[in-house]
Amino acid sequence: MPRYALLIEYDGRPFAGWQAQQGQPSVQGRIEAALARIDPGFAAGARIAAAGRTDAGVHASGQVAHADLAREWDPFRLAAALNAHLRPDPVAIIAASLVTDDFNARFSAIGRRYLFRILSRRAPPVLDAGQVWHIRQPLDLAAMRAGAAHLIGRHDFTTFRSAMCQAASPEKTLDEIAITAVPRPYGVEVQLRLAARSFLHNQVRSIVGSLERVGVGAWPPDRIAEALAARDRAACGPVCPPGGLALTGVAYPVDPFAG
Amino acid sequence: MPRYALLIEYDGRPFAGWQAQQGQPSVQGRIEAALARIDPGFAAGARIAAAGRTDAGVHASGQVAHADLAREWDPFRLAAALNAHLRPDPVAIIAASLVTDDFNARFSAIGRRYLFRILSRRAPPVLDAGQVWHIRQPLDLAAMRAGAAHLIGRHDFTTFRSAMCQAASPEKTLDEIAITAVPRPYGVEVQLRLAARSFLHNQVRSIVGSLERVGVGAWPPDRIAEALAARDRAACGPVCPPGGLALTGVAYPVDPFAG
Repeated sequence: MPRYALLIEYDGRPFAGWQAQQGQPSVQGRIEAALARIDPGFAAGARIAAAGRTDAGVHASGQVAHADLAREWDPFRLAAALNAHLRPDPVAIIAASLVTDDFNARFSAIGRRYLFRILSRRAPPVLDAGQVWHIRQPLDLAAMRAGAAHLIGRHDFTTFRSAMCQAASPEKTLDEIAITAVPRPYGVEVQLRLAARSFLHNQVRSIVGSLERVGVGAWPPDRIAEALAARDRAACGPVCPPGGLALTGVAYPVDPFAG
Repeated sequence: MPRYALLIEYDGRPFAGWQAQQGQPSVQGRIEAALARIDPGFAAGARIAAAGRTDAGVHASGQVAHADLAREWDPFRLAAALNAHLRPDPVAIIAASLVTDDFNARFSAIGRRYLFRILSRRAPPVLDAGQVWHIRQPLDLAAMRAGAAHLIGRHDFTTFRSAMCQAASPEKTLDEIAITAVPRPYGVEVQLRLAARSFLHNQVRSIVGSLERVGVGAWPPDRIAEALAARDRAACGPVCPPGGLALTGVAYPVDPFAG
């Protein structure tokens, strides 16, 4: 069966997360329903697998999944057909590509990139509602960067991991936390870009929630190092809300969408 | 009565436009209803005036209005009180400022800035749905810029003016049309920034709709000059949809929100 990689954008708000769950709307379930309209295998219950199983309310501009179809498709027609069946839900197939059978969207991935957006201003978000975390206080970016620096590299991230995380090991290598400011009227949008081969469950939101404590001055930057060293979930700052988070890209040894 | 300038952000989608209309939801009406909760004059029917009377579906990140209140307010408290009463509608007061009685949000304005966003890619917009105009074809930005250059300066913009426009004269001076590209996965976001002292009704959307014809290759850039010279509404390209448009800023001789 020909295998296709799908590049997917979605708004996480109406979904209980990526993963299909009984009786709850999921991005995976929505795409499988669209596939079932064009493919007998999916009509009979075939499944797709994705690189990142995003939580409820988390968005994606660069999620990747793979699907085995009964017949060959022109990739443009496949994306267009799925988009027609996904309408009007906020999920779109940005690109489709025929890949080899050994490509697995989840297990072939060698990098994931996430963007977390914080809107720091007094007034609530309007045009970015649901896509930013609203903080009323100003944020000290230099302090946040100093705190974030402690997390770069290979560490035991037990502190920054959901109690429900199913990963075999709490050890992960965090490659990058870039923190930038975008000016906004009477405020600033703070963008945190995190990159790693893979992340633990709730790792990004646990890190951002802790760095926000540093940004507002409630924690000194070194408390991030202490929290990490504690290897104790209780040492983590409050896990921040999901709406500011988006999976922006997945890296593979060979880009499945190139060419 | 103390006069306050209000800096306003709104999502135009749920509204029939800025201007209050009988029986239809308007941004003006929504803000006046919030003012009525905190001020006896507005409870008795006082009105506000804004710099730009945006159409249905058009957004704003920098609309300015003024309101005369019965008593003095701390500007932060005024904005917070109004935002509490505006909730959950997508309208927020970004800043409030005490101004002199001769400040008029509409008549004191010496410049308006608009941003029009076009998403050029095959897949429909998801995270930017309702805030971009979706075009499936690629756009030739050099051709669009060449077409736009014909419109800069003082001209009779009859071609690019709604038949319902109530301005006394069709002559306006267009100061700037900056066209930039922001890369997106498998596409591009084209941003058009227009600046003028004031605009005619539907002028921005008439210009953008005509420049899109140039961008997709349906019109040569010089057809923009011919359309302008025709001074004939029939020579205009299709008026583009409102969702991509936002009023981003209003200029005054003295910034009412400074200090």
